Amino acid sequence: MSTFSIGVDLGGTNLRIAAFTQEWERLKAASMPTRVQAGPSAVLDDMCSAIRELAAEFAQKRTFAGVGVGCPGPLELPSGRVLTPPNLPGFEGLELKTELERRLHCPVVVECDANAAALAECHAGAGKALGFQSLCMLTLGTGVGSGIILNGHVWHGFSGMGGEAGHVPVYHDGLLCGCGSRGCLEQYASATAIARAGKKLVLAGSQNGSATVTARSLAEAALAGDPEAQKIYDEVGKALGIGLASLVSTLNLPLYVVGGGVAAAWDLFSPAMFAALEADSYIYRLSKPASAAVPEHGKTNVVPAKLGPDSGLLGAAMLPFFE
Amino acid sequence: MSTFSIGVDLGGTNLRIAAFTQEWERLKAASMPTRVQAGPSAVLDDMCSAIRELAAEFAQKRTFAGVGVGCPGPLELPSGRVLTPPNLPGFEGLELKTELERRLHCPVVVECDANAAALAECHAGAGKALGFQSLCMLTLGTGVGSGIILNGHVWHGFSGMGGEAGHVPVYHDGLLCGCGSRGCLEQYASATAIARAGKKLVLAGSQNGSATVTARSLAEAALAGDPEAQKIYDEVGKALGIGLASLVSTLNLPLYVVGGGVAAAWDLFSPAMFAALEADSYIYRLSKPASAAVPEHGKTNVVPAKLGPDSGLLGAAMLPFFE
Repeated sequence: MSTFSIGVDLGGTNLRIAAFTQEWERLKAASMPTRVQAGPSAVLDDMCSAIRELAAEFAQKRTFAGVGVGCPGPLELPSGRVLTPPNLPGFEGLELKTELERRLHCPVVVECDANAAALAECHAGAGKALGFQSLCMLTLGTGVGSGIILNGHVWHGFSGMGGEAGHVPVYHDGLLCGCGSRGCLEQYASATAIARAGKKLVLAGSQNGSATVTARSLAEAALAGDPEAQKIYDEVGKALGIGLASLVSTLNLPLYVVGGGVAAAWDLFSPAMFAALEADSYIYRLSKPASAAVPEHGKTNVVPAKLGPDSGLLGAAMLPFFE
Repeated sequence: MSTFSIGVDLGGTNLRIAAFTQEWERLKAASMPTRVQAGPSAVLDDMCSAIRELAAEFAQKRTFAGVGVGCPGPLELPSGRVLTPPNLPGFEGLELKTELERRLHCPVVVECDANAAALAECHAGAGKALGFQSLCMLTLGTGVGSGIILNGHVWHGFSGMGGEAGHVPVYHDGLLCGCGSRGCLEQYASATAIARAGKKLVLAGSQNGSATVTARSLAEAALAGDPEAQKIYDEVGKALGIGLASLVSTLNLPLYVVGGGVAAAWDLFSPAMFAALEADSYIYRLSKPASAAVPEHGKTNVVPAKLGPDSGLLGAAMLPFFE
């Protein structure tokens, strides 16, 4: 009998739940707004209803492996306790794993959402396509998430906070981050940071005024030849290159994957990223592939993610198999 | 029958060889200058003679586990090929492991010297004393070496260059490093960097002029109350704190060990180090022990090394058991 699992992507805006086969084929999905205002208990109710429905539908013909949940960090792992998630106000201290297991009576694995996305890229995305079982993935979205996969498994660190590369300091005494530190990668390479830089441009009058400057609208402007918009993406690439230099020097992994919404602008930021990485890491210089665009085994490769925005949901469904 | 191994510490100045029991008791040691000028073959001859002599002396009563060699990086591992070591000119491309095995007819494990020191701190130093099997060690000497131990074993990365934290960029566009990059930790926290900063003081006339300003003489001046010398150690601590912030955010290890000759000045640089680490890493802020000086399980601990300058030699002898 084939096996299935259920993945949950608990975001600050949307709650998405889907059943997958162990070959990572999606069987069925459900999506709803995350009722953050209604509090953790209401959100858990929504989540559990959808999980029960999916489990009931597929459990007759398949073995149910369990539930995996990707949740915004920081989390305490493996206990699955939510710490202080900026996008889930009111969820501080929630015993997410314990609460779900109590309600669902099945094994639940909770993981940081960026780690879940990295797991999916390893087993079904860039890692699988290129033949690597170890990688570090940066997810450029509202913030900069990151996850480290070693030999096919999430590297948690001793308390579940491994791979928080979005908070590696890239510019000492730089911009103040939501985490309270200064100069974190997240303040230069997230969609939020890009939109903020774009709004400054509008205020300075060099962009056609629009109240809704986003990372995407700036990417479109840069692609259309706007040099100021391109400069913003050059800065994104430079910060990413400095952050990657730290990671490459410390971890010496064969693969670094850049994903999240901002990664769609790969062609705009990757030249500056590779230039900064090459300038700042002698290990990269010693181990870079002949062409940055053509990954090689035995070299340090940096590539865009292969999976789209659903990688976190798929990675969550992989958790029961890889923890 | 008890077991013994032979460790080799191949330095740019001294070549040290010693036999140890598996309980890490030193049986006998030999030391000689490293004849770098005479070339790799002469150095290998010296090394092999000393190894054969020690092996012959102890092999009658004990089982011989093999030879471990700590060598300045960068190395290609596990092949044991020397790449471009700044302190061993002429050794570029040397197949150290293959050459030694050909001459000695016994298993040889080659490892980066800083990784060997980290292994010793794990199994016989700070890690053992505090009950941790995973740590990252920074060795502050002529350069800044570093090694990562995960669950008791060296983390090599995919090509033997894992844990090169001495080359994490701490100040973007900072001082030029011997590796060719700018702003590497090594340029701020090595004995060389400290001596260089001290020489500037002498030139500026604020230190009693001496041609031989060293990290140690500056530490003595700082201990005697010289505020300018203390400022230099404050800068060492600050750079270490920024570098540690990167490591803590990425690795989330329970223990970071600071060793090497400069670590003797722990009281001079550690206050600035903890201040910068706390400012630059929210993971450290979330997970620091109640008092930085009192390590706690379940927290992020940063401590001085417990073993002295022989940790690299002992760690080399551990290699046959832990690879």
